[in-house]
Amino acid sequence: MQPAEARYNKNSLLLALRRYSLAVSDMEQTILLPSLLRDLPSDELWDCDAAEETCRDLYDNYLMLKAIRNAAESGLIPLDDHKAKKNSALSKTLEPLLDADPEALFRFHLKGLFSVLGDLTKKSQSLTEKYMDIIGVAN
Amino acid sequence: MQPAEARYNKNSLLLALRRYSLAVSDMEQTILLPSLLRDLPSDELWDCDAAEETCRDLYDNYLMLKAIRNAAESGLIPLDDHKAKKNSALSKTLEPLLDADPEALFRFHLKGLFSVLGDLTKKSQSLTEKYMDIIGVAN
Repeated sequence: MQPAEARYNKNSLLLALRRYSLAVSDMEQTILLPSLLRDLPSDELWDCDAAEETCRDLYDNYLMLKAIRNAAESGLIPLDDHKAKKNSALSKTLEPLLDADPEALFRFHLKGLFSVLGDLTKKSQSLTEKYMDIIGVAN
Repeated sequence: MQPAEARYNKNSLLLALRRYSLAVSDMEQTILLPSLLRDLPSDELWDCDAAEETCRDLYDNYLMLKAIRNAAESGLIPLDDHKAKKNSALSKTLEPLLDADPEALFRFHLKGLFSVLGDLTKKSQSLTEKYMDIIGVAN
């Protein structure tokens, strides 16, 4: 009987990372022929107006989900940021936050990371299901 | 000869967390009488206009640095957010980011967490030095 602990565990960043990592492993093991995803339009889960780069087709989504998983697992901050332009736009949005106190900022980024990992987990699961639909395997 | 790896390691989130954790441990071991920090004005490192709550005095700063360290080490997302009001203001700033693609969002929060941990490390070290000044111990 550890309701508080159980609730807390569901909200652990490490658990969110683990869930995402498992979803991507599952995706990799299921999608044996990623090239089948080429030229297939991106899932409705992806906001394609805002993120043209990653929305070209399902194959790009597949590559992106794997790339983020690798970055997430290593916990490394990319130095050579190929998305520098996008990050610069985000940094402008960040400016008002720089005045916030560090505790609020810490919680903001921790929650943000937690939330984006949950989102990516759903996207990985959705892509896996889509692939099974494509090859005609029932879930 | 691993220049790339060495550079990367400096940018690891886990290393940033470890550095912060060590700075707070050092602070705890040095500050044997935290009550001496009461009523002493907050350090110039703290943006006190924007963060009145955490800037009341050095003692509050001390408690906050310890609290964030505990949260950071557990990696848990707080459920009962006593800073809900502040987070709500931050979430409003977040709204434009929600349209961003998940990779950019992931990098944004990862970098943000890295940056805020660096900031908190400096604050912990500065508070430790300030305490030594107060009790008249040379660094």
